[in-house]
Amino acid sequence: MISSANNAQIKNINKLLKSAKERRETGSFVVEGIKMFEEARKLGLIRKAFFSDELHEEWKIVNKEALNELDYEVVTDKVFREIADTVTPQGVMGVCSVKSCTIEEFISKPACRLLFLEDIRDPGNFGTMIRTAEGTGVTGIVLSKESVDIYNPKVVRSTMGSIFRVPHVYVDDFPGTIRKAQLEGVIFYATHLNGNQEYDNVDYAKKAAFIVGNEARGISDAVAEKADQLIRIPMCGQVESLNAAVAAAVMLYEVYRQERREN
Amino acid sequence: MISSANNAQIKNINKLLKSAKERRETGSFVVEGIKMFEEARKLGLIRKAFFSDELHEEWKIVNKEALNELDYEVVTDKVFREIADTVTPQGVMGVCSVKSCTIEEFISKPACRLLFLEDIRDPGNFGTMIRTAEGTGVTGIVLSKESVDIYNPKVVRSTMGSIFRVPHVYVDDFPGTIRKAQLEGVIFYATHLNGNQEYDNVDYAKKAAFIVGNEARGISDAVAEKADQLIRIPMCGQVESLNAAVAAAVMLYEVYRQERREN
Repeated sequence: MISSANNAQIKNINKLLKSAKERRETGSFVVEGIKMFEEARKLGLIRKAFFSDELHEEWKIVNKEALNELDYEVVTDKVFREIADTVTPQGVMGVCSVKSCTIEEFISKPACRLLFLEDIRDPGNFGTMIRTAEGTGVTGIVLSKESVDIYNPKVVRSTMGSIFRVPHVYVDDFPGTIRKAQLEGVIFYATHLNGNQEYDNVDYAKKAAFIVGNEARGISDAVAEKADQLIRIPMCGQVESLNAAVAAAVMLYEVYRQERREN
Repeated sequence: MISSANNAQIKNINKLLKSAKERRETGSFVVEGIKMFEEARKLGLIRKAFFSDELHEEWKIVNKEALNELDYEVVTDKVFREIADTVTPQGVMGVCSVKSCTIEEFISKPACRLLFLEDIRDPGNFGTMIRTAEGTGVTGIVLSKESVDIYNPKVVRSTMGSIFRVPHVYVDDFPGTIRKAQLEGVIFYATHLNGNQEYDNVDYAKKAAFIVGNEARGISDAVAEKADQLIRIPMCGQVESLNAAVAAAVMLYEVYRQERREN
């Protein structure tokens, strides 16, 4: 049993929790909590598991099969609490392999509904968008390279598991990627204060991509110029803009509403 | 100029930033940043202002009138950075008076659109909901007493100013307040996994209230029982629920969409 936070494997977990660079270089990230861990396990993504002493004792009785097929270590409850990124740790963490896609896979499909995120910085917002994306049938997420790391523990947690089900790709040339997708027939919609169509007055294309911009600055001019249609979400009162995750949700739920109406 | 974090007024600000009890007992809270401060100032809500030395020098030139009408102190840049709740403080904070309403004011109006929040805990989520509420024409927010304090600095910040424009009230007896509003003709809608109507298949009443529940547990049974209609937001994939602020936004934007269609 690991009983010291100085143990090399524990230090490694810590690095993975804290450093995006470490995650990128090792192609791995950490999931915490029973629900997320179990999803990752069923998808065969767990490279190595870490149990608190307490949960390990419990799983020896109630989940023996899972333990048998895992490569794992047991950690004293005290050390486990020290390394956990959550306030009330549930006693299990797993080191998972990252899984990335290519933009070509996304745009080659006859029906694609993509979310293009430019420079999203808030992990909670980002995780929420991934969750909403799955809920509205988004087939892929494309991220500008300045965006927050999708494997940041707070993003992973906020997705409530959607991170395992919605494929994503980071791209170096965000406007160039938009152009590439447009050549394959994808129509780009961007919410913008200068939008000339209200979001619920647009007939969305079968191959559609939705651009959401940075929380503070919105979509950059270089990207807005590339959009096929700038759309506007009307707002009462003196509200100047919506939270980025809310704007994405309002737009994506309208697209999904139209799809449900057609079927 | 205040040059020590041990100054009594600075300690007082710190208490107001950190303690909901202190805010409740003094009937005051802190706003930070130029935009929020200016909104509060124009509404006459600033009891006392605190400027960093740097911003004070700037305002002596560009905003002299504002300074003249304020009761304020200047604080060294160093101490200002120490007390600020934000990572990049803009050099101004104000102690504001709280403003509360009564449920009777809310429900007596011929058209009312209310948001009933049961036990919302995440400050960012809560602030986002207040912002969306203003954007969709909500006339008042009713909060169960377990909900996070609306004057928590993170909530205040996330509202982007909507906190000054959407009235609210905390109530001790949440189900009892629902009953009271129902007797005045308010119809209650709650998003619920057992909802039998899809959210966009409901014709919302003129006097309507929307219940949103706790982030983890949703709406309690005692409250769900009181709702006139349980509605459902459809979700693709394996998503079990949406983020609370997203669910509120999807529902409120549908209500606002119907209203815009009618006009």
